[in-house]
Amino acid sequence: MEQVKAQISEAKAASRLLANVGTDAKNRALRSMADALENNVETIFAENAHDIEAGKARELSATLLDRLTLTPERIGNMANGLRDVAGLPDPVGEVLSGSKRPNGLEIQRVRVPLGVIAVIYESRPNVTVDAAGLCLKAGNATILRGGSEAIHSNMILARLMRTAGEANGLPIGSLQFIETTEREAALILMRAEGEIDLLIPRGGDRLKKSIMENATVPVLTSLGGNCHVYIDKSADVEMALAIAYNAKASRPSVCNAMETLLVHDKAACKILLRFGDLLREGGIEVRGCERTMEFIAEAQMATETDWETEFLAPIIAVRIVNSLDEAIAHISRYGTGHSEAIVTQDYAASQRFVNEIDAACVYVNASTRFTDGAEFGMGAEVGISTQKLHARGPVGLAELTTYKTIVRGNGQIR
Amino acid sequence: MEQVKAQISEAKAASRLLANVGTDAKNRALRSMADALENNVETIFAENAHDIEAGKARELSATLLDRLTLTPERIGNMANGLRDVAGLPDPVGEVLSGSKRPNGLEIQRVRVPLGVIAVIYESRPNVTVDAAGLCLKAGNATILRGGSEAIHSNMILARLMRTAGEANGLPIGSLQFIETTEREAALILMRAEGEIDLLIPRGGDRLKKSIMENATVPVLTSLGGNCHVYIDKSADVEMALAIAYNAKASRPSVCNAMETLLVHDKAACKILLRFGDLLREGGIEVRGCERTMEFIAEAQMATETDWETEFLAPIIAVRIVNSLDEAIAHISRYGTGHSEAIVTQDYAASQRFVNEIDAACVYVNASTRFTDGAEFGMGAEVGISTQKLHARGPVGLAELTTYKTIVRGNGQIR
Repeated sequence: MEQVKAQISEAKAASRLLANVGTDAKNRALRSMADALENNVETIFAENAHDIEAGKARELSATLLDRLTLTPERIGNMANGLRDVAGLPDPVGEVLSGSKRPNGLEIQRVRVPLGVIAVIYESRPNVTVDAAGLCLKAGNATILRGGSEAIHSNMILARLMRTAGEANGLPIGSLQFIETTEREAALILMRAEGEIDLLIPRGGDRLKKSIMENATVPVLTSLGGNCHVYIDKSADVEMALAIAYNAKASRPSVCNAMETLLVHDKAACKILLRFGDLLREGGIEVRGCERTMEFIAEAQMATETDWETEFLAPIIAVRIVNSLDEAIAHISRYGTGHSEAIVTQDYAASQRFVNEIDAACVYVNASTRFTDGAEFGMGAEVGISTQKLHARGPVGLAELTTYKTIVRGNGQIR
Repeated sequence: MEQVKAQISEAKAASRLLANVGTDAKNRALRSMADALENNVETIFAENAHDIEAGKARELSATLLDRLTLTPERIGNMANGLRDVAGLPDPVGEVLSGSKRPNGLEIQRVRVPLGVIAVIYESRPNVTVDAAGLCLKAGNATILRGGSEAIHSNMILARLMRTAGEANGLPIGSLQFIETTEREAALILMRAEGEIDLLIPRGGDRLKKSIMENATVPVLTSLGGNCHVYIDKSADVEMALAIAYNAKASRPSVCNAMETLLVHDKAACKILLRFGDLLREGGIEVRGCERTMEFIAEAQMATETDWETEFLAPIIAVRIVNSLDEAIAHISRYGTGHSEAIVTQDYAASQRFVNEIDAACVYVNASTRFTDGAEFGMGAEVGISTQKLHARGPVGLAELTTYKTIVRGNGQIR
């Protein structure tokens, strides 16, 4: 574990230099990293093969094995992701606000890198590339700790990026990959107060819980997305059906997918008969409240657990409510503060929903599936935060920075 | 402790309503709280007398007893503080950014209250009033937990404010005061995940350490201010003397006071002989490096501990350095990231200092004593944050909020 501690110190030292590396140098480094990945596909495949072999030996599911597998196309996508990040505006140096005070002091709040960002993640190797690219572009030294399933793939990707980056203007040690998969290494990262400025977990509930319990460094996390669409009595039926189906069915496995549909009693008949047909065709299982059964015959009775569950699967919970108030109360109780939508033609209902729902992203007449850095025009993201401190919603480049206040004077004293 | 848990739930429920209370209603409530304090000075004195009596029995120092004592003037200041907060612009509802996407979605990032803010603080009763005023103006339900020394004073202040606030438009339960002084109550606050959105500690190192170790709710804290002034070789001597003396002597007990003076070797003779005289007259004790002794005869030899210490007292550490690099290295090693200043006439040195010092506030040719919400034009503050996440530097109204992303569409799906 001495190695892990040394890597943290090296990252800290690098972060001081990296904060003042210019935009051009950072972009050059990112592009050379992209090239390095594409120029070394065979080396990457060889390492990836070790992970796939080990995965088969451990009898990982086909889905997990597929996630693990790197193809020329996937490597190309990772490389292009880095080039996209190179093309994004540099957040560092942005003047967030400023004023000249009556005493002549010139005060500016300027965006600066956080310092050292550690990312602890599971399975998919593309996180190695995506997270490192964004953290580095925002001027941060980066420490990556991936899951054991992808250890060989992650190691070669990180090594290629580090070498290319350091050969092209990044300070030595700006990118660190933790090679040991022992649990203690993660604990050291979680408790490196004063050295790690931000810890981002990307993975399942177990990882997040461990970080909640153990971390003393600042954390940016997501509690997942138990997202809702509420169809108001005044909703346009076609629009409501399109949004609800898209929010559930376009990609059920992601955090911005809808898990529970709430329908106003007065819209239930118009909506649910046809929505039931759509779900049936889409092969989506329904867990409904008692009244839902009148419209969707094959629905199972929903339990309390169903309202609480982020299915991340082709399963939907459906509940008929008697009012907007009931919808808001349901969402306040079961929602995780990720993305919530109302479909309505009633202006007052839209305003109440927008103001009273306490979530990162609140939609009127659009699918929850738009909660995404690129869709919001922020560029790439390292994830969606459901916390309220620092960053809420998509975590893009700006959210990977902090600010300092610069005060220039000519001898002012107080 | 059931009472504490009930208070947290009550605050959470109130926060949902409070988020949509308008600016006028909040300001009316704040002004009526101010009036309530001034109209009940006798009641406040009676309660305050219990605390003073208990303090004397516990043999508190004269300084601590003085801090505890409420006078008509101090109550007037607290009331006027509330009126000042009422006069500040409401941060809630500010549109931080917004755009219309190519698909027609209208996306806005809007400032909203955090929800429930808990403040754990020690001794001075004015924190009860100041913190509650700011948190409430920013639309947050507020839970106060004061120190045992001021429990009677805090209780009556909080009760008067709560009654006046609820009589004037604040939801029932918006302001909670924890009446038990048992340690377990603080622990419940620290671990009220999902109910308390932000915990702000105001007090000594022991309190902060306990929160660092125990809190699972988000925390906004300050590691204190081990602040430095560096006098560059090119500094204007008169300006340097004025800034250094002001930064140390104007109020040694506060976090933005300088603790260590760094002087470039080439400026040492011009500066330190005269600065030594100033310190002597001001009754300020000097702990110097070996070379400092040549100029300030009565200086004691500084130890490693002195460079690390936030004296908060009429004591100063002084060190002669050979270069700007050495000054930056000293500050990077010993600074707490609060406020750091350079005095220089050299443009390049000023730019390097501003860019390379990693602190909440970085000064060129001005005293560190300006780190303060009011001095920065932010209005009142609940403290100075030295953390990098969420808020860095003075924590004013805006820093007591978060944002949500509101997306308005007309049927967009993905």
